[in-house]
Amino acid sequence: MLTKLAQYPTFQVFLALAVSVLFVVVLTPLFIRLLNHRQIGQQVRVDGPAGHLRKQGTPTMGGVVILLIVSLVFAGLTYIAAPRAVHATPDTLLNYTMAVRGAVLVLVTTLACGLLGMIDDLAKVAFERSLGLKARAKLIGQILIALASAVAAVNWVHVVPRLQIPATRAFIDLGALTSRLTLSTVTISLPWLYLAFAVFMIVAVSNSVNLTDGLDGLAAGIVMIVTAVFAAIAYAQNSLPISLLAAAISGACIGFLWYNNHPADIFMGDTGSLGLGAAVATLAMVTRTELILPIIGGVFVVEALSVIIQVAVYKRFKRRVFKMAPIHHHFEMLGWSETKVMVRFWIIAGSFAALGFVIFFFQFTRLGR
Amino acid sequence: MLTKLAQYPTFQVFLALAVSVLFVVVLTPLFIRLLNHRQIGQQVRVDGPAGHLRKQGTPTMGGVVILLIVSLVFAGLTYIAAPRAVHATPDTLLNYTMAVRGAVLVLVTTLACGLLGMIDDLAKVAFERSLGLKARAKLIGQILIALASAVAAVNWVHVVPRLQIPATRAFIDLGALTSRLTLSTVTISLPWLYLAFAVFMIVAVSNSVNLTDGLDGLAAGIVMIVTAVFAAIAYAQNSLPISLLAAAISGACIGFLWYNNHPADIFMGDTGSLGLGAAVATLAMVTRTELILPIIGGVFVVEALSVIIQVAVYKRFKRRVFKMAPIHHHFEMLGWSETKVMVRFWIIAGSFAALGFVIFFFQFTRLGR
Repeated sequence: MLTKLAQYPTFQVFLALAVSVLFVVVLTPLFIRLLNHRQIGQQVRVDGPAGHLRKQGTPTMGGVVILLIVSLVFAGLTYIAAPRAVHATPDTLLNYTMAVRGAVLVLVTTLACGLLGMIDDLAKVAFERSLGLKARAKLIGQILIALASAVAAVNWVHVVPRLQIPATRAFIDLGALTSRLTLSTVTISLPWLYLAFAVFMIVAVSNSVNLTDGLDGLAAGIVMIVTAVFAAIAYAQNSLPISLLAAAISGACIGFLWYNNHPADIFMGDTGSLGLGAAVATLAMVTRTELILPIIGGVFVVEALSVIIQVAVYKRFKRRVFKMAPIHHHFEMLGWSETKVMVRFWIIAGSFAALGFVIFFFQFTRLGR
Repeated sequence: MLTKLAQYPTFQVFLALAVSVLFVVVLTPLFIRLLNHRQIGQQVRVDGPAGHLRKQGTPTMGGVVILLIVSLVFAGLTYIAAPRAVHATPDTLLNYTMAVRGAVLVLVTTLACGLLGMIDDLAKVAFERSLGLKARAKLIGQILIALASAVAAVNWVHVVPRLQIPATRAFIDLGALTSRLTLSTVTISLPWLYLAFAVFMIVAVSNSVNLTDGLDGLAAGIVMIVTAVFAAIAYAQNSLPISLLAAAISGACIGFLWYNNHPADIFMGDTGSLGLGAAVATLAMVTRTELILPIIGGVFVVEALSVIIQVAVYKRFKRRVFKMAPIHHHFEMLGWSETKVMVRFWIIAGSFAALGFVIFFFQFTRLGR
């Protein structure tokens, strides 16, 4: 029965999710033991909610397990998955090879940002402070990774430098300012407008997920929902490898939630949040749903905006819009329990994700033509 | 855009879910205010975990809102949904009319059991005790409702009195002992073996969900998962009305979770748990997945078994297998927070449900032939 089932792409995507859940549930306790042995724990921000101070010392860097399992499950399943049932439309990826490249690009960008986050996490432990790497160093690292990723998207995955306007079949062309760079036999195309947009998107989403990760189960649960939607989008586009990767990420987040819900036994750390944020952004890039992303990942947008608004208004008027930013702390201050904030934000994230999927579905099917 | 989308069955199912979420989120606070005004609160069992005593007085009977919204959303959407894309296979329901009848049967059984639960809930409040109706009276009520439902399934929905063996296309025939009853012009077929099985299934599942409903967010979350799978199964079988109903139930549970997670603002009460349990069982009956149900709803089976084992072993050996039954209290006693038990049981329920769906998928597609 399993051999027969394994030939079905639907089942492969399901398997990617299920195996990731299982592996992360099994491996995380071993990782927690390792961290405790080496006394690596979270440094809690001193200006956060007072109730969060007891989180001091909770093991962190759980993102290591997530990213490790995602890589292994993706590699294993893509190796098994033959290039079947892949008839890409001209709007999406050209063929199976491009889908594999797209998935590999997402994975490599994710791991690179995860590594940057890990350096940050380790710096926090080493210097026993909450903020880790200097903000500027981190930002420069993110921009460099994002730029490399965007250049590879255009030149290696053959992503066309344009953005589809949601719910339509109209495009914004971002290929106007293109340079060409010839290195021996290879010519690299550099469509600066699209690259600038992509870098902004990757860096912004990565940092937004990082901001969202301030309450037990919040970031993991929302990334689980968002990547599940990307698994469905990539599946609809016949980009099976991308769908497998997204499903593996979603499953790894579910497995991580086993330990990460209130009171958390482990945090994902910047390793997890910067990596997963980059995953979400690059998934949007390779599935060409860049402008639907703000809807699919609506909660990340709201979290980031809450910080921007809070800081901007405070600087100008010396008044606070929210009791505390990011916005999840605002609701905690209103007396919602951490569990309530988590479940309610999940429900909102699910609604955003579903709305985003409906918009994708509309423009993908004949309806939008 | 919405008018075009509304013609898609996929979108209708999505809409059933989304509208239910929204309505339950909006209506529940009004219901809580009504209950507080009339001072109707939960009586907590005196032999439960000590930490649960503070739940005394939490508003209950939230199932009223769930069942009300499910009925309205189902009625509204079935009215809109034209009988399109319905090519039933001989194994499932014969045509659109039968699918409508199947859905109506599920809804009526659900409402009847919900009403029984409501009488129980009100009796608890009136007599200020935790147990409500006498156990025997409740059981007799459940059996009568289940029997009527099973007879209607066979004679009105044309359910064939046989059970499909999971993952195969083999059947267990339960039509051997059949009586026929002629009432003026109508002849009613009474296949006693199948009726006995169906009554057992409906009563058992209804009471299992009732047992599961002893911890914030637990029953609502698991019913949400299980009914989502039935929405997918019915959709695959082209039984759109049944799929719409299951999706509406799933959505109503999501909306209810907005208030029901720890610390709960409201409980579903027996109104909710007996009604939703009956819904799950009758969904299995009309989708002909009776023998996959123990897998799809695996957590309900485990919860019920934990009580049976605990009582049986204690009677015989005067020893407790679990620190406390049902099993979710056992894990609480081990020191898991209510949130941890909830999220972990959800993950387990999701795994059971996914496994059940894979088995259905296997026998439904050509694979199992």
